[in-house]
Amino acid sequence: MGRTSWLPVAATSPFSLANIPFGIISSATSPLRRPATVIGTHVLDLKVFAERNGFAGLEAIQPHLHVFSSTSLNAFAQLGRPIHSKVRTYLQNVLSEDTAHPTVLRDNAALRNASILPLNTITTHLPMEIGDYTDFFAGIHHASTVGSLFRGPANALQPNYKHLPVAYHSRASSVVVSGTPVRRPWGQILLDPTANPKIPTFAPCRRLDIELELGAFIATPNPLGQPVPVAEAEAAIFGYVLMNDWSARDLQTWEYVPLGPFNAKNFATTISPWVVLPDALEPFAAKGVENDVEVLPYLRGENKQYDIRLKVDLTPAGEGAVPTTVSETSARNLLWSFPQMVAHHTIAGCNMRAGDLLGSGTISGEGERERGSLLEQNGGGKRSIQLVRGAERKFLVDGDTVTITGVCGTEEEGLVGFGECTGQILEAIEKPW
Amino acid sequence: MGRTSWLPVAATSPFSLANIPFGIISSATSPLRRPATVIGTHVLDLKVFAERNGFAGLEAIQPHLHVFSSTSLNAFAQLGRPIHSKVRTYLQNVLSEDTAHPTVLRDNAALRNASILPLNTITTHLPMEIGDYTDFFAGIHHASTVGSLFRGPANALQPNYKHLPVAYHSRASSVVVSGTPVRRPWGQILLDPTANPKIPTFAPCRRLDIELELGAFIATPNPLGQPVPVAEAEAAIFGYVLMNDWSARDLQTWEYVPLGPFNAKNFATTISPWVVLPDALEPFAAKGVENDVEVLPYLRGENKQYDIRLKVDLTPAGEGAVPTTVSETSARNLLWSFPQMVAHHTIAGCNMRAGDLLGSGTISGEGERERGSLLEQNGGGKRSIQLVRGAERKFLVDGDTVTITGVCGTEEEGLVGFGECTGQILEAIEKPW
Ligand SMILES: [Ca+2]
Ligand SMILES: [Ca+2]
Ligand SMILES: [Mg+2]
Ligand SMILES: [Mg+2]
Ligand code: NI
Repeated sequence: MGRTSWLPVAATSPFSLANIPFGIISSATSPLRRPATVIGTHVLDLKVFAERNGFAGLEAIQPHLHVFSSTSLNAFAQLGRPIHSKVRTYLQNVLSEDTAHPTVLRDNAALRNASILPLNTITTHLPMEIGDYTDFFAGIHHASTVGSLFRGPANALQPNYKHLPVAYHSRASSVVVSGTPVRRPWGQILLDPTANPKIPTFAPCRRLDIELELGAFIATPNPLGQPVPVAEAEAAIFGYVLMNDWSARDLQTWEYVPLGPFNAKNFATTISPWVVLPDALEPFAAKGVENDVEVLPYLRGENKQYDIRLKVDLTPAGEGAVPTTVSETSARNLLWSFPQMVAHHTIAGCNMRAGDLLGSGTISGEGERERGSLLEQNGGGKRSIQLVRGAERKFLVDGDTVTITGVCGTEEEGLVGFGECTGQILEAIEKPW
Repeated sequence: MGRTSWLPVAATSPFSLANIPFGIISSATSPLRRPATVIGTHVLDLKVFAERNGFAGLEAIQPHLHVFSSTSLNAFAQLGRPIHSKVRTYLQNVLSEDTAHPTVLRDNAALRNASILPLNTITTHLPMEIGDYTDFFAGIHHASTVGSLFRGPANALQPNYKHLPVAYHSRASSVVVSGTPVRRPWGQILLDPTANPKIPTFAPCRRLDIELELGAFIATPNPLGQPVPVAEAEAAIFGYVLMNDWSARDLQTWEYVPLGPFNAKNFATTISPWVVLPDALEPFAAKGVENDVEVLPYLRGENKQYDIRLKVDLTPAGEGAVPTTVSETSARNLLWSFPQMVAHHTIAGCNMRAGDLLGSGTISGEGERERGSLLEQNGGGKRSIQLVRGAERKFLVDGDTVTITGVCGTEEEGLVGFGECTGQILEAIEKPW
């Protein structure tokens, strides 16, 4: 059994004492955005905690206390992993029943009242200022299923797929925090792909889809022109979030050749609010999908993943609607590790900055019920997905809410999870032109 | 003949009184980055100018003077075009021989000494903090020539090309200001595309290329989910720069299917330091390439371009080396206007922020000597390009310096230009792994 906190933590909470993730909050009484951690059903306001000497027992953070007055976690991230580890361990200590620092918070009513807030009274915000967001394509089961739908089974995986972690630059401005509604996009759709000439229609997206992904935030920058060795790349990662890379499949099919997806992806990407540190996930490290080709030396290394139990729930609009779990899989289903992604991303000299976001690509398992996009589940729009109470879906309809959760570990030892990555689809705007 | 300045402005200067572009400078005596404008061979430090009441004669800017204490032009850009126009017109007035405000600067030795610096004593920096950088593909002559090389003449232009301004998200972190050296990238190269299986080699890029582009910076943000109408999109643009979208062709060929170019583009993109306002370019508005298909209503509007005379010079390394002009063309050679690009970029709901950068795509004319990339000039690596003094090139070699210039108007009326967008190729780093 893990250590217990003097704060109440339900066994089912993803935010046990074993977790201690970081996020950005505001509250009705204090609208300024500021760093916090979460435990059970409470958050600890790290700005107030730092200002009132809560970190007195942690020497290493003293020169850097200003990072907790920032409106994003970028400054904290940039301190580097050894400092993150120390801060997390110290907070675990301060929050545990048998704390070595009882007077800091446990027995300090004034600071408890000032710094501990019920989770249901605060608002979470984007945890990082995201400089660049790159989306990889490392979910091999997704890549082969979708590649087969788009290009036929013979060309399902491109020749480069197992030699490099395929990726494209995506859109940073439209990354939103969990809970933000997602407006159905308008765009160009080719209704009849066999027509000649091909004339697109202008319409709201009819094939609105999800992509279940894991996101990683960069902590440590590298200078332009200096690649990050794969063995050093793990140390450059600040932490992880869940991600829903909303995708407009009909827009994508028409626009993506030859330069890749664009408007099909840039209308919104939702991330969970709490950044879970690698330290918290380390006990759940697991081997990813084995690569059966020999990769180049700059990419060599174990394919280390985390065995995060991922779940996608779809809830239709309306009073009393209930969720249907449309997918359950593990984050192990990736061909490339995040360190391999960083190594490849920087091998030509690209500089990463603190706050840069890397998406894993859609995570699908091999089973029917393990697919991280609706496109894979419906066989390219051919089959319906059954929801509870008789409803069915091919793609998302207005009012649908999609909620991704991800959790590691056991209730006995204390769960390590991400909370929710959720968003509801709003109807498209009136025909714009 | 245009108005003249009381500062010396050579007829050949791109920075006549008719221009008044904006940039970010620092100097040995004052290393803080700050806004400035340039005229002839001098810059006017707008931080000092604003602090010492230089804008006294311009009511409209009074509530916003803080923007001139910023380390980027984002805050100034976000004030919107009506304010930019007023500031430019006021500065033209203050700097002109027959100024209506002689005591502000012309006859104010103290402020002249404090705020006017020789251009050759200052350092220019990135003018904007770039949130997202999107690269379009609107140079139709480039698209058809390169498409033909990559996919054969039958598939040169994809079916979507004339229906939407094709684009991909590119990398913001590696956009650098003119003068920054560019390191030859390492990457995966498929030496024999006919081999089976296809096994890439790891090597420094052998097909290092340029792309002659025009860049536009966004001034006015739009909220997520709210497209910008094409008729309103021009008002959202802050100004223009020259751009060299350095490209590693051999990396690109291997990596770009199916998600688009990635490491082939993200190792560096160079822009010119001075942002030229639309007002300054307006007298040189010209019709772009006519689109022979009927586009959807949200993209309808004239294809307004600027007749900027663009030139690409290549100078080998070494004492006494002379430049060869390898390309000369006009910025008119685009199928889509920047307002059309903005309208398309936002039609699915993507939000733009002040400081976002849009690249035009490579600009090539129809003639042999009008091609904006070496790939087009060398026929896909088959022909050599002759340089003066007997040297020749297919692609760039280490030590080569590429300099793009662009200028409008006449020496009589005063030139409106961008200055230089230049970079020298450094040898690849030692084999990393
Ligand atoms: Ca994705
Ligand atoms: Ca380009
Ligand atoms: Mg997305
Ligand atoms: Mg580039
Ligand atoms: Ni002088």
